[in-house]
Amino acid sequence: MSLYDSHKDILDRAVKALHERTFWAQYPEHPSPKIYGEDADKLGQEKFKALMGKKYDELKQADPENWIGVEESPYLQEPLNIQYPAFSVDTLISRSEAAYHAWRKVSAEDRAGILIESLERMKKRFFEVAYATMHTTGQGYMMAFQASGPHAADRALEAIASGYEELGRFPATQYWDKPMGKFNIQLDKEWRAVPKGVSLVIGCSTFPTWNTVPGMYASLITGNPVIVKPHPGAVLPIALVIAELQAVLEEQGLPVDICQLAVDSFDNMITKELAEHSAVKLIDYTGNSAFGDYLEGIAGKAVFTEKTGVNSVILDSVDNIDKVVQNITFSVALYSGQMCTAPQNFFVPESGIKTPDGVVSFDEFAQKFADFTNGLVENPKAGPYVLGTIQNKKTLGRIDAAKEMGGKVWLESRTLENPMFKNARTATPMVMELSSAEKDKFAEELFGPIALLIKTKDTQESVALAKEMAQQHGAISCGAYTTDAETREMIADEMSLAATPVSFNLTGGIYVNQNASFSDFHVTGGNPAGNASFTNPEYVVKRFTWVGIRMPAEAKA
Amino acid sequence: MSLYDSHKDILDRAVKALHERTFWAQYPEHPSPKIYGEDADKLGQEKFKALMGKKYDELKQADPENWIGVEESPYLQEPLNIQYPAFSVDTLISRSEAAYHAWRKVSAEDRAGILIESLERMKKRFFEVAYATMHTTGQGYMMAFQASGPHAADRALEAIASGYEELGRFPATQYWDKPMGKFNIQLDKEWRAVPKGVSLVIGCSTFPTWNTVPGMYASLITGNPVIVKPHPGAVLPIALVIAELQAVLEEQGLPVDICQLAVDSFDNMITKELAEHSAVKLIDYTGNSAFGDYLEGIAGKAVFTEKTGVNSVILDSVDNIDKVVQNITFSVALYSGQMCTAPQNFFVPESGIKTPDGVVSFDEFAQKFADFTNGLVENPKAGPYVLGTIQNKKTLGRIDAAKEMGGKVWLESRTLENPMFKNARTATPMVMELSSAEKDKFAEELFGPIALLIKTKDTQESVALAKEMAQQHGAISCGAYTTDAETREMIADEMSLAATPVSFNLTGGIYVNQNASFSDFHVTGGNPAGNASFTNPEYVVKRFTWVGIRMPAEAKA
Repeated sequence: MSLYDSHKDILDRAVKALHERTFWAQYPEHPSPKIYGEDADKLGQEKFKALMGKKYDELKQADPENWIGVEESPYLQEPLNIQYPAFSVDTLISRSEAAYHAWRKVSAEDRAGILIESLERMKKRFFEVAYATMHTTGQGYMMAFQASGPHAADRALEAIASGYEELGRFPATQYWDKPMGKFNIQLDKEWRAVPKGVSLVIGCSTFPTWNTVPGMYASLITGNPVIVKPHPGAVLPIALVIAELQAVLEEQGLPVDICQLAVDSFDNMITKELAEHSAVKLIDYTGNSAFGDYLEGIAGKAVFTEKTGVNSVILDSVDNIDKVVQNITFSVALYSGQMCTAPQNFFVPESGIKTPDGVVSFDEFAQKFADFTNGLVENPKAGPYVLGTIQNKKTLGRIDAAKEMGGKVWLESRTLENPMFKNARTATPMVMELSSAEKDKFAEELFGPIALLIKTKDTQESVALAKEMAQQHGAISCGAYTTDAETREMIADEMSLAATPVSFNLTGGIYVNQNASFSDFHVTGGNPAGNASFTNPEYVVKRFTWVGIRMPAEAKA
Repeated sequence: MSLYDSHKDILDRAVKALHERTFWAQYPEHPSPKIYGEDADKLGQEKFKALMGKKYDELKQADPENWIGVEESPYLQEPLNIQYPAFSVDTLISRSEAAYHAWRKVSAEDRAGILIESLERMKKRFFEVAYATMHTTGQGYMMAFQASGPHAADRALEAIASGYEELGRFPATQYWDKPMGKFNIQLDKEWRAVPKGVSLVIGCSTFPTWNTVPGMYASLITGNPVIVKPHPGAVLPIALVIAELQAVLEEQGLPVDICQLAVDSFDNMITKELAEHSAVKLIDYTGNSAFGDYLEGIAGKAVFTEKTGVNSVILDSVDNIDKVVQNITFSVALYSGQMCTAPQNFFVPESGIKTPDGVVSFDEFAQKFADFTNGLVENPKAGPYVLGTIQNKKTLGRIDAAKEMGGKVWLESRTLENPMFKNARTATPMVMELSSAEKDKFAEELFGPIALLIKTKDTQESVALAKEMAQQHGAISCGAYTTDAETREMIADEMSLAATPVSFNLTGGIYVNQNASFSDFHVTGGNPAGNASFTNPEYVVKRFTWVGIRMPAEAKA
């Protein structure tokens, strides 16, 4: 049985789910022993520990030219001392070009089978991936498991399904019969989906699999060979995924270089050299806007970016203010604000927030915001695990700089002791009040645990500012709270013009930060936050070209 | 009955045809009196003549700021003296922005109904459009009718169908029910296809409707207001189409500025000012590569281009050399080589072309090429009508310059008397021999009636050169003649890597220049000839953004 036959059922259900857009997941997000095995967590942790301090030898790329590794754990504040095989740009490109011609001739069905098989094998290593993610990104355990494991695998599967569907959109061959009056012109036609060529996928330090696998699998399903260039600080999680894929490729008699890992170090980055190489036709990127803008400006490439944005929450009227504040303060605290979907600017009318029990004043709201944040942070069963750690030391500097902005500080950021990791690099959320006139202060992304409560004239001004932020600086998420249907439609319409998805009235266990595969498009592509939307049709159709072949029906050789 | 209801049948059949890709046309290409009416031709010609020398007053754009018109007939070599209402860039943009908010709220169904209605009305004016096309582009009557009338309308309908299908790809709303173990998270979700904004469509002088309506209707069906900026030398054909669309919009109570004509003159071109305006989000362009490259380089816009290319014909082996030469010389002569799909470089092995009756030497082939060209040109019932006229005086200069390239001239270009128009600007095809070493001479588009017969070492070199031309300089078409199945697959595979469609072994009444709507993709998007492929999914999905709205299912206001 081919891998396509083995996984046809998963593929068919995934294609169906793409269109239905209701909840669907192939990979259960709960790290339950019943689902993943009684000792899966323990074994995963052991396997991760066994990788530390060694050469990572699972990749099948031949003849390493060097061994490189500079990862550090934000929990331990110590190097992981894992060395990865490294290759020159020339080697990576020439191997990718050679692999291209093998991979482009594999059918869409067989490609899908191979790629889904790699995800099924990744599934067996979700816990190992989780610990690798914790100790590179600094995420809490639960997020590290969910985001880097099942959620990433589901996003990868979504890209596979979307590409597979597009490849089959037009018939492979067709008989074309045109009546001309006294005779007919009859042609045999054929259409080939020709992959664009070498694909470069550039990873980020905070979500090393979740943000990498969509582009990687979208390029692969459409027949392009992929070079994955991870962030030097977060290599292991994606290395584990690529190792599994290379194993499947080798078993199928295909070149392992169809998907290569390209490791570099901070003192010798190879990203620009790869990106500018004429052989590279596709670039996927997650990271800061300056580098993303540079990549988008390279001529002759299809570039898919997830850059940065300024995410807003608009507060107008609520049913239950405490439930709302509990929800939004959790959104800020989650992974210490280091999610691209984390809210930063909270727009509140100077007249306060309407509730069934009367108006909650701006100051009452701000105090609740501080209190609920403290309540979460100080809960020893929740705080350390929700916050995780700070991936990059620079983020601590950003908090210090934010203090100098001069607004009223409703809550200072502080370190939080992690009961399991005494050296963990932590910072609790800082909460500052600003006025709507201080646009220069809130009109940029302050990546990290920084919440700005911005006093506006009214909800109209809140919406106008949220829209302006999204249109000028990008936005990936928007939260809004209103109990008025007309206001809701106004917000939905205005924010849709800034291409920003809106979550209304979220309370309880669902947060504005969260984006579900097979249902929520991630980064819509319509504002400066980026143009890669997981996984809309554009995300896959730009990775190949439809080329037609035709000849007289009677003249075939 | 709504226009959608009236035209639902056409729309449904068009969507079906998009996928089937066999022959399908809504608008019959033959100017038959039985189809279009006994006196349709005569009336069309009269109406065209009545427009000459006047202000064109059918457009409904309010308060013209100026009247401009510089068209000249290549048949008469005299000005048409038609003046069009003209507006400043500020007026055009502000009207377009205002119209945007009305048009984006019209449903996809109603947009489709309105747009198809405009094509049905255009159909009634196909003959008028044909004469307008003859006397601006210089095309022969038959091409002017077919390309500007039914073929253009079919391409427009294809764009409508493709956009309509994409707008309906995802459900408008969905209930999302995620099991969380002890409870479920239930959201109501909604997705909106948000149009990108003001769309600029820049026309060319040779195919003023065929190359304009795909982008125009693709933007309109996806909810974007359109500003059509025609070439100053070819305004009337598209003005007639826009007038019909504006009439339908007005009848439906919608702003006519949803589609505006933006006329300029050679001494005061407004294209750059429009293209660079921050409100313009989409640009469609047909024309020279230098300006196309400039447009593609403007940040923050989705740009669809059809630029120039160097089209090749590869000659390896044939069943009947005379039928082949008849076919390819017709392709060169058709509209005097002024089609973007016209072949220029004919690659022939120095050992000649294999046939069942022995090898045809390079020189024999070259002589046949000259003879068949003369035969066609000198046939008074065919020559003047197939060649048409030369649209732009500069093309004559290009023929003179080509003479200086130094290759053996197998046939000189000369003027050809047109029995109906004694002042017609004409030039018959020039045929020159070059060697494969003279790449500097044949590695650029020599727009016009210029055929280069290039002697190569063998078919392998022919294919390598054709591929290189396409990859380096772009190509929109490729012809190939081989009776060997292995060679055919080699050519198909190599040219597909240069994203160039290949027509094999065409003889008789079908030519490499021809591209059928609903079947052949036009400009594949994979080589420097441009990125606008009529009409693949990318051509429409980049014109809008999917934006999601979600809220707790129980918390709706």
